[in-house]
Amino acid sequence: MATTHARLGAAAGEDAVGYPEHLRSLVEDYLINLRFACEPGAAGLEEAMRYSLLAGGKRIRPVLALATARTIGRDPREVLALAAAVELIHTFSLIHDDLPAIDDDDLRRGRPTSHKRFGEDVAILAGDALYAEAFRLVLREQRGDPARLLEAVAELADATGVNGMVGGEYIDVRDLAGKQGVGLRRLHRLKTGRLIGAAIECVLLLSDVAASTLAEFRAFSGELGVLFQIVDDILDVTGTDAELGKPRGSDERHGKLTYVSQYGLQRARAMAADSHGRARAALARAVPGGAPDLEQIADFVYARSS
Amino acid sequence: MATTHARLGAAAGEDAVGYPEHLRSLVEDYLINLRFACEPGAAGLEEAMRYSLLAGGKRIRPVLALATARTIGRDPREVLALAAAVELIHTFSLIHDDLPAIDDDDLRRGRPTSHKRFGEDVAILAGDALYAEAFRLVLREQRGDPARLLEAVAELADATGVNGMVGGEYIDVRDLAGKQGVGLRRLHRLKTGRLIGAAIECVLLLSDVAASTLAEFRAFSGELGVLFQIVDDILDVTGTDAELGKPRGSDERHGKLTYVSQYGLQRARAMAADSHGRARAALARAVPGGAPDLEQIADFVYARSS
Repeated sequence: MATTHARLGAAAGEDAVGYPEHLRSLVEDYLINLRFACEPGAAGLEEAMRYSLLAGGKRIRPVLALATARTIGRDPREVLALAAAVELIHTFSLIHDDLPAIDDDDLRRGRPTSHKRFGEDVAILAGDALYAEAFRLVLREQRGDPARLLEAVAELADATGVNGMVGGEYIDVRDLAGKQGVGLRRLHRLKTGRLIGAAIECVLLLSDVAASTLAEFRAFSGELGVLFQIVDDILDVTGTDAELGKPRGSDERHGKLTYVSQYGLQRARAMAADSHGRARAALARAVPGGAPDLEQIADFVYARSS
Repeated sequence: MATTHARLGAAAGEDAVGYPEHLRSLVEDYLINLRFACEPGAAGLEEAMRYSLLAGGKRIRPVLALATARTIGRDPREVLALAAAVELIHTFSLIHDDLPAIDDDDLRRGRPTSHKRFGEDVAILAGDALYAEAFRLVLREQRGDPARLLEAVAELADATGVNGMVGGEYIDVRDLAGKQGVGLRRLHRLKTGRLIGAAIECVLLLSDVAASTLAEFRAFSGELGVLFQIVDDILDVTGTDAELGKPRGSDERHGKLTYVSQYGLQRARAMAADSHGRARAALARAVPGGAPDLEQIADFVYARSS
């Protein structure tokens, strides 16, 4: 643990920790085959959607969904539609967050952001369309008991709405985290944590899992979301532009409250270590027999350099 | 018919034709009681969402949903969650369409548009949040057989995605209607028609309706969508600013291809009359015994002045 922690922010850390690449491949193959436009006139919109969707990345959210399926004894391929929907939604949020009126970022994963490449109008609509197609995909393609599927998709909507991802983005944009008693942890619980949690929880809602197990998984995913954000804030300060695929220090330039700006780098690193420990402990309670894929993901989120 | 047609664009036409106000009241009461933010930090986001959602209007889409329920012998209150979800989605699309990067409109229903009132960042997020909450609402609150509900919500997603509302908006924004063989009718089928159609079709999907009846209703809703758009284009030229709640002639200023710019005012009026006739005929086939609410709505869409 200490070794990993010391390497945090260095590319070596990423290599030292494994990642369920077989699950990422499943996700990547599925995403690359997705087409959206039956209408010839909308081909350009599809192009913009796929430009952002296929920009690579570790696919942490959909891989979490597939790993969760495996952990509870299901074939991960059975939840690919759901997992892909989560990634579509994540991509939608990145496109809108990058817009000039919001974070005004020109680069994402080393390439021009959607609005730099296609114009602001198309970027707004590509985000909207990814959100719509995420729901269409999971509702039309995800197999499972209808009542369970309804619950899973409702959780996905809830996790990404006012009391989830978009609400968190609003709190961030209006810089309310330091005010109104919201706090950093709550901000990130909404902005990042709930979609990460939904990637796990929706798979469990689709399956036959005891309420107590669901609660243990929620403790794990909640902590994983916190860990993800602390490391994100650290990397914004310590990472290189090449690793991040965007200019380092953008949080600072935007004057954002982050774990580093609030607690300092050293304390933030200690908080990441604590959070990682708590996430692993919660996972051990959720899956007493061990969950290699999910453990790897938790370790990766802690040790990643981008 | 001829009388109504002659009055098209005059406020008197609206008064002369009835409207199912009892259904509109049900919708209005339901919408006004909707709350979205459990998170105190997101209260301002909810405020922006409700500002646009509660700006009035005829509520044609949700009223169509309720009228459809009545027509097939159901209590309209049973589909209020679905109907409201359709109106949330419509509101989301208006907010994003008005953005500076898209139509750049300052006024909507006589009031400042969302971005003029709350800023562009909040307007983008308010739109996103309305879309999320629409799905949450219908998935959590709409009663019905789970498999049927899944189908209805999938139709809602499909009708508003790449091959529906957002795709139509893309074609409009990129001015592709005159190119690539898309055509005006196809553009509006996507941009406006599919959501109007979904308001009707989703209620039928939720209910036990024969496939042949569904097809007849689709013919009606498809024609109603065309009628709606032709009249919209005529009103943009003949309406007054006060009636429209925004400056007249905005299509022309944006250099948009419309029924009026393509066919001239006189021919567009004749097309509206034809379309209205076809809509009423399709409705008569769908409901041989008569459907007073839906007939009123079709007449209103034809005769409206705003």
